[in-house]
Amino acid sequence: MTAKATRQYVYTDAAIASLNGETGWSLIDEGAIAIEKGRIAYLGKTDDIPETLAGFERISVGGRLITPGLIDCHTHLVHGGSRAREFELRLEGASYEEIARAGGGIFSTVDATRNATDEELLAGALRRLDRLLSEGVCTVEIKSGYGLDRDTELRLLRIAAQLAGMRPVRVSKTFLGAHAIPKGMDGDTYIDEICLPALRDAAVEGLVDMVDGFCETIAFTPRQIERVFKEATRLGLPIKLHAEQLSDLGGARLAAEYGALSADHLEYVEDRAIAAMANAGTTAVLLPGAFYFLGETRKPPVEEFRHHKVPMAVATDSNPGSSPMTSILLAMNMAATLFGLTPEECLRGTTVNAARALGLSDVGRLDIGGTADLAVWDVTDPAELTYRMGDAPLDRRVFGGVEC
Amino acid sequence: MTAKATRQYVYTDAAIASLNGETGWSLIDEGAIAIEKGRIAYLGKTDDIPETLAGFERISVGGRLITPGLIDCHTHLVHGGSRAREFELRLEGASYEEIARAGGGIFSTVDATRNATDEELLAGALRRLDRLLSEGVCTVEIKSGYGLDRDTELRLLRIAAQLAGMRPVRVSKTFLGAHAIPKGMDGDTYIDEICLPALRDAAVEGLVDMVDGFCETIAFTPRQIERVFKEATRLGLPIKLHAEQLSDLGGARLAAEYGALSADHLEYVEDRAIAAMANAGTTAVLLPGAFYFLGETRKPPVEEFRHHKVPMAVATDSNPGSSPMTSILLAMNMAATLFGLTPEECLRGTTVNAARALGLSDVGRLDIGGTADLAVWDVTDPAELTYRMGDAPLDRRVFGGVEC
Repeated sequence: MTAKATRQYVYTDAAIASLNGETGWSLIDEGAIAIEKGRIAYLGKTDDIPETLAGFERISVGGRLITPGLIDCHTHLVHGGSRAREFELRLEGASYEEIARAGGGIFSTVDATRNATDEELLAGALRRLDRLLSEGVCTVEIKSGYGLDRDTELRLLRIAAQLAGMRPVRVSKTFLGAHAIPKGMDGDTYIDEICLPALRDAAVEGLVDMVDGFCETIAFTPRQIERVFKEATRLGLPIKLHAEQLSDLGGARLAAEYGALSADHLEYVEDRAIAAMANAGTTAVLLPGAFYFLGETRKPPVEEFRHHKVPMAVATDSNPGSSPMTSILLAMNMAATLFGLTPEECLRGTTVNAARALGLSDVGRLDIGGTADLAVWDVTDPAELTYRMGDAPLDRRVFGGVEC
Repeated sequence: MTAKATRQYVYTDAAIASLNGETGWSLIDEGAIAIEKGRIAYLGKTDDIPETLAGFERISVGGRLITPGLIDCHTHLVHGGSRAREFELRLEGASYEEIARAGGGIFSTVDATRNATDEELLAGALRRLDRLLSEGVCTVEIKSGYGLDRDTELRLLRIAAQLAGMRPVRVSKTFLGAHAIPKGMDGDTYIDEICLPALRDAAVEGLVDMVDGFCETIAFTPRQIERVFKEATRLGLPIKLHAEQLSDLGGARLAAEYGALSADHLEYVEDRAIAAMANAGTTAVLLPGAFYFLGETRKPPVEEFRHHKVPMAVATDSNPGSSPMTSILLAMNMAATLFGLTPEECLRGTTVNAARALGLSDVGRLDIGGTADLAVWDVTDPAELTYRMGDAPLDRRVFGGVEC
């Protein structure tokens, strides 16, 4: 164990939003949080720090806010190429066909990803990851899905795993072989001959924490997605789903039937599916970046999620085609401004509920004995994190007890 | 002159978007740009660098993009307090009256500003300014308008001037006494007894580069604004106007009649006013951050601006009430995503057209002999600057010939 990790210290004079209650910030004024062996050894008032911590180094944060380290629970961070030119063509009035002819669309990213070297994929992902870390992110989910062949899908997951060795960050790896149907192939053949074998191989190699799919008219049918879920279940892997982003195919209900950790997007989800999600404990992951970037108008039914007590998470959906976003704080602002979430819901959405969407119980909240992933902010009011646009008032980040 | 400022150097191997033509990026591939005594001594192909520059230090930027330093031509950067709590109340469903009773609205910022010390105002403004500089901004416009009394209005302008001494940045100072009508006073009395005398005193002290007003049902009538314009004209100061943001009072036409540098917001501007702006050479400053943050739906008539050849600028409108934004790149992305500007229009909007909105002819474009304000970017395609959300791929900034 390094000297850093064995360090015993306590932040004092903090406004702590522990988020460890069922609702609310769970604020502690003039709070303190002690860290030992990567875990939280004390959480409470500065005045009440117990005698047993007398040997801990004391660091005043001067009234600053401390929250759990943030969690971006839905990203496609590893990919080749850029779609800036496609974005430009669209704004210059090019038609869908002209863009396709100019090599736009998801398949341009698939081609660029297949043709990129590991070094290129790593460099691009690191650049995006570093932006997230600069905003207090301690855990990031990363999906495959731009390979659409066995080797590239596995390569993307290996690179996602590699990132965790290169930066102080926790990476959850999601297999998203069922992201798009490769050109010249039908969906069933792709699922049988490429997606499922790739999933098995990736699972054997220990590259998969979760299994995801894209259930949509432009992607896979619920029946095809169900075969992926069955295989994931057989492999003992939890599932999640891109569901009801552009239409209602019943994906969220299907995901709930399989006990999904989350259903993501959900602009078109119907009330009965929401009840099913509530029963299954499935988290609704809201992705306002894609809604904004695509100019969508139908919003996810936030009031119904509240009514059914479906936990809401918020993520960047960082990807080149529909959300080229690398700011979790901007995702929070958009969730508030565009979808009407409160600042508290936005912060729960990138901490405790984001953890839930990843099946993690030890991060995303501050508890004695829990993992010491923290963000210290140059603000005192947690609402500031959602309110500001384009600011990143991070003072410092603590990952697994180590100051970064 | 410092050693830094007398340094002679040339950036080579650059993709240069000089923006010095009437339209287009004016791209130079494998370009070079030489800097001497704060000015651009050469702009062209790396291969064609003349013999006379043989003594210049050569710095390869490895294919990176160089643009003019960016210009944020509409901000309210100097103010006290925060409106995060008001934002939170609104999202929690509080009514307008409840928010007002809780001390929300513009007058909460006026109170917080009046009560803040110079040091507090400086610290807050510096934090916001530093975010802008980290995105390649070299020129920023800053308005008064949260004082609404003589002394505080002048104090805000002095602080704006002070900022330019504390950071390598050009500050344009705008007197915006006609921002809101103080409680318990009527608009005419305020204009006569406070606004105009304050303007005269500020002008005498050399604190005013431009004069602005807010023409709106919730602020000042065109007749009141016209008195401000007359006084500005008498003082030899150029004018601009917040016009047609929430309704059409004919502010843009009035501004054009007085030869305004710009009319800003303009969601409700009518076609005849656009023609008047075109004739007067008045720039349309678009502020998508406020449109987004306030959840507005009526967009500025971009197609009509194009048709009438009215130059369009883009700015953050950084302010606590309607656009708590400190990212010029996000403003560009919003101008594209929400208003349909092309990436080229967005970059012209924060360079050459932003300069025009401030009456500056020597910045915002790269020309031999012009001021060496540059931004060097970790991208090759200028469209990337508008496409990405929450990224700030700045490699370095050059202000007045000096690397920052």
